Amino acid sequence: MSPEEFRRHGKQVVDWIADYLAGIESRPVMSQVEPGEIRCALPERPPEHGEPFEAVLADVERVLLPGVTHWQHPGFFAYFPSNASGPSILGDLLSSGLGVQGMLWITSPACTELETVVVDWLADLLGLPDHFRTDGRGGGVIQDSASSACLVALLAALHRASGGRVASEGIDRRYTLYVSSQTHSSLEKAARIAGLGAAGVRVVDVDPRTLAMDPAHLRTLLERDAAAGAVPAMVCATVGTTSTTAIDPVPAIGEVCRERGVWLHVDAAYAGVAAVCPEFRWINDGVAAYADSYSTNPHKWLLTNFDCTALWTADRAPLLGALSILPDYLRNAATSSGSVVDYRDWQVPLGRRFRALKLWSVIRWYGAEGLRAHIRAGVALAQKLASWISADPGFEVHEPHPLGLVCFRPLWPGTSPDEADRATTRLMDRLNAGGSLYLTHTKIAGRVVLRMAVGGVATEHHHVKSAWDLIREEHAALSARPR
Amino acid sequence: MSPEEFRRHGKQVVDWIADYLAGIESRPVMSQVEPGEIRCALPERPPEHGEPFEAVLADVERVLLPGVTHWQHPGFFAYFPSNASGPSILGDLLSSGLGVQGMLWITSPACTELETVVVDWLADLLGLPDHFRTDGRGGGVIQDSASSACLVALLAALHRASGGRVASEGIDRRYTLYVSSQTHSSLEKAARIAGLGAAGVRVVDVDPRTLAMDPAHLRTLLERDAAAGAVPAMVCATVGTTSTTAIDPVPAIGEVCRERGVWLHVDAAYAGVAAVCPEFRWINDGVAAYADSYSTNPHKWLLTNFDCTALWTADRAPLLGALSILPDYLRNAATSSGSVVDYRDWQVPLGRRFRALKLWSVIRWYGAEGLRAHIRAGVALAQKLASWISADPGFEVHEPHPLGLVCFRPLWPGTSPDEADRATTRLMDRLNAGGSLYLTHTKIAGRVVLRMAVGGVATEHHHVKSAWDLIREEHAALSARPR
Repeated sequence: MSPEEFRRHGKQVVDWIADYLAGIESRPVMSQVEPGEIRCALPERPPEHGEPFEAVLADVERVLLPGVTHWQHPGFFAYFPSNASGPSILGDLLSSGLGVQGMLWITSPACTELETVVVDWLADLLGLPDHFRTDGRGGGVIQDSASSACLVALLAALHRASGGRVASEGIDRRYTLYVSSQTHSSLEKAARIAGLGAAGVRVVDVDPRTLAMDPAHLRTLLERDAAAGAVPAMVCATVGTTSTTAIDPVPAIGEVCRERGVWLHVDAAYAGVAAVCPEFRWINDGVAAYADSYSTNPHKWLLTNFDCTALWTADRAPLLGALSILPDYLRNAATSSGSVVDYRDWQVPLGRRFRALKLWSVIRWYGAEGLRAHIRAGVALAQKLASWISADPGFEVHEPHPLGLVCFRPLWPGTSPDEADRATTRLMDRLNAGGSLYLTHTKIAGRVVLRMAVGGVATEHHHVKSAWDLIREEHAALSARPR
Repeated sequence: MSPEEFRRHGKQVVDWIADYLAGIESRPVMSQVEPGEIRCALPERPPEHGEPFEAVLADVERVLLPGVTHWQHPGFFAYFPSNASGPSILGDLLSSGLGVQGMLWITSPACTELETVVVDWLADLLGLPDHFRTDGRGGGVIQDSASSACLVALLAALHRASGGRVASEGIDRRYTLYVSSQTHSSLEKAARIAGLGAAGVRVVDVDPRTLAMDPAHLRTLLERDAAAGAVPAMVCATVGTTSTTAIDPVPAIGEVCRERGVWLHVDAAYAGVAAVCPEFRWINDGVAAYADSYSTNPHKWLLTNFDCTALWTADRAPLLGALSILPDYLRNAATSSGSVVDYRDWQVPLGRRFRALKLWSVIRWYGAEGLRAHIRAGVALAQKLASWISADPGFEVHEPHPLGLVCFRPLWPGTSPDEADRATTRLMDRLNAGGSLYLTHTKIAGRVVLRMAVGGVATEHHHVKSAWDLIREEHAALSARPR
């Protein structure tokens, strides 16, 4: 494709996306296709001859869109938001167009240095401590996802706990990781990948009301394990759990970690970015004093399309110790001088895109005040929603709900807990089949609860209001039906 | 940014990229900035107020471009090519614009099903065995990079070798991985990440001429280790090593692996895609009969911008066994039914982009014949280059050079080997400082050798010819100078 063909087709694609975003509300939020339906609609074998780009675009519309769940739809309240704002899409387009490979500083210095600048900017915007900035012993890096960030943190923690022996001799069964029942499943996955296995993971109790980790139980487990000859490598505290946005007490957890010399990682995947607003900075209490590493996802709620997770560490030495290997074909004067950052040593893969461009575009287009306005709008809508639910005797809100996620339970008087769970699931399925909204569920104390996460780029007051009206109507209709 | 603002700025960015690609030859290939230069040119603090998108684009041009090494420049011969073709950039743009999260089938069925279709298409295009297709026990998936693909293969291999015990109990020091001195460093990194450590990695001898793995030595190591109580988990054979595109003898290695029941992964990161041409399919001899898993990178030489690595396995069960964890908030009817693929269980991260769109766009725009033409053109130019070098008494070509990479040594008569290495490095630095080409080095038998990888989207005969002329001139100039 020549540059002039690219110019023509590129504008077609831009128009297609602008039209898609402008008309997104007319589409059902959640795809209703059956397994295999999209695959069957596509040719089994690749084409022998090239096709015009218009044919690709036409098939996106005709074949693929029925199978797309519209994460940018204003009625998308499932999981967590996955903001894809205009400047972010364009930053990513610039990255694709430049087509540089940022594995080493030398392979495109701007790719590395802009990344350093934007993660420092983001630390500044979130009020994170200066020792996370790259000009000291610490530093930040963009990872593809919070899962990868937590894995990398665990590898650094194992490196420190083992005095570097894990990298040379391998792991053994003494090393342990501490999470709660509410910690993201990627931590258990990280433990498996790193060779700890499920057996190396300790599950700390949570407060039954707030679902936040119990620091006293953490201390008990650490003491017991240390006495038994285990080597506690890392504790993962969560700021805003995936299930209910529970916030673990980082200061108390950090105090326990410090006493025992255990690496503290703070996983703030969803919630961390809320700290762009001074009034939400309390969520990061204890991070400056205690966290060895910290991660949050601009690709969830901070207007930056996937993939963009920021990971910071207070000391990059164990991270580099765990992950640096330098074969001859990658040696170069800049790396040898030690005066540059080579981000390949901060992550699992070798190769990397110029991901800093999208975060830079977002921060510049919105400015700090625009980012704050976006977070505040999402929180305000979620709090409004929670107030409506609280006021309705047919529903029960899970407290607390400090940010953009509201978990709630429709009540089904006269039913057993199991019947109530089934009725709630039926309600959710009916709502999601309707096409105007999409929400998901979780379990609290073993019982099904609905989750409604507010914070989409296009979501406004009337979308949340209509969603709530519909939930009430469907709940009333199902409640009235004989079972 | 509203859809209409996106439309306007999107077209500005498309124009900028088209102009960039059209004028790329006027820029020096390799950035000449000093460490810190780009960082210093950027504000230390993020902006409080939003800025117009034009300001971002202007800074890309003014501040960033001097720090960009132009991987799409026709004079880029360093590392391996990183093709970013027009249809690929546009497929990626569609992915960013849709902004879907493909972690589960249910979160956007088209994202999963198109991926299954295109990896099956690619297996077809490369002549890979039917048992790699997703309708049997095996299956394919897109990973971010070959590093991650090799790590995932190792995790699957460990799962199989341990009967699932690694996932539950964790690893111990009995497990071993087999590579050669020419295997990519990401395998050693994978071994460290998976908890084997450097001590769990065995380095098999290579043929001193071809640098291909010696299957007899592999057998010896496996027997010795098994006798000592080790559990050999995986052998990694390489089709096209990073240093010199050496091709390990997969049939003989596979026979050894089969005898001992060891997982064989074939890392064909760079070279594998050459098999779109029937005349290069011999590189994959033995893969159909012996490989448990296989990976290759369309993001290197197959016109698809980073990140896009295809990984196939003959049996997906150990892969899923190693990586599946299902918390309540991700449970859904489609996953529970077992009738769908959830690609989050095939990779390290949970989240994933709609990466299939770019590979699909590429295959449709070029068609099989277009892909073959691209590979053939690169190989033909490289072979022409090799013939020029061979014919010149001032240089020595490393044999064999079956694909797009040519390794060669400038001769410096009357110098010691160390002096010759320094002279070669000086030559390379002078060439790279000149701005019209960029090449890198490796070491063969401990001695510095230049690598010239041909296969860029824009590279034509006259670019390779001018590069060669320049190399000869500079070599002559340096040879004539008193040292």
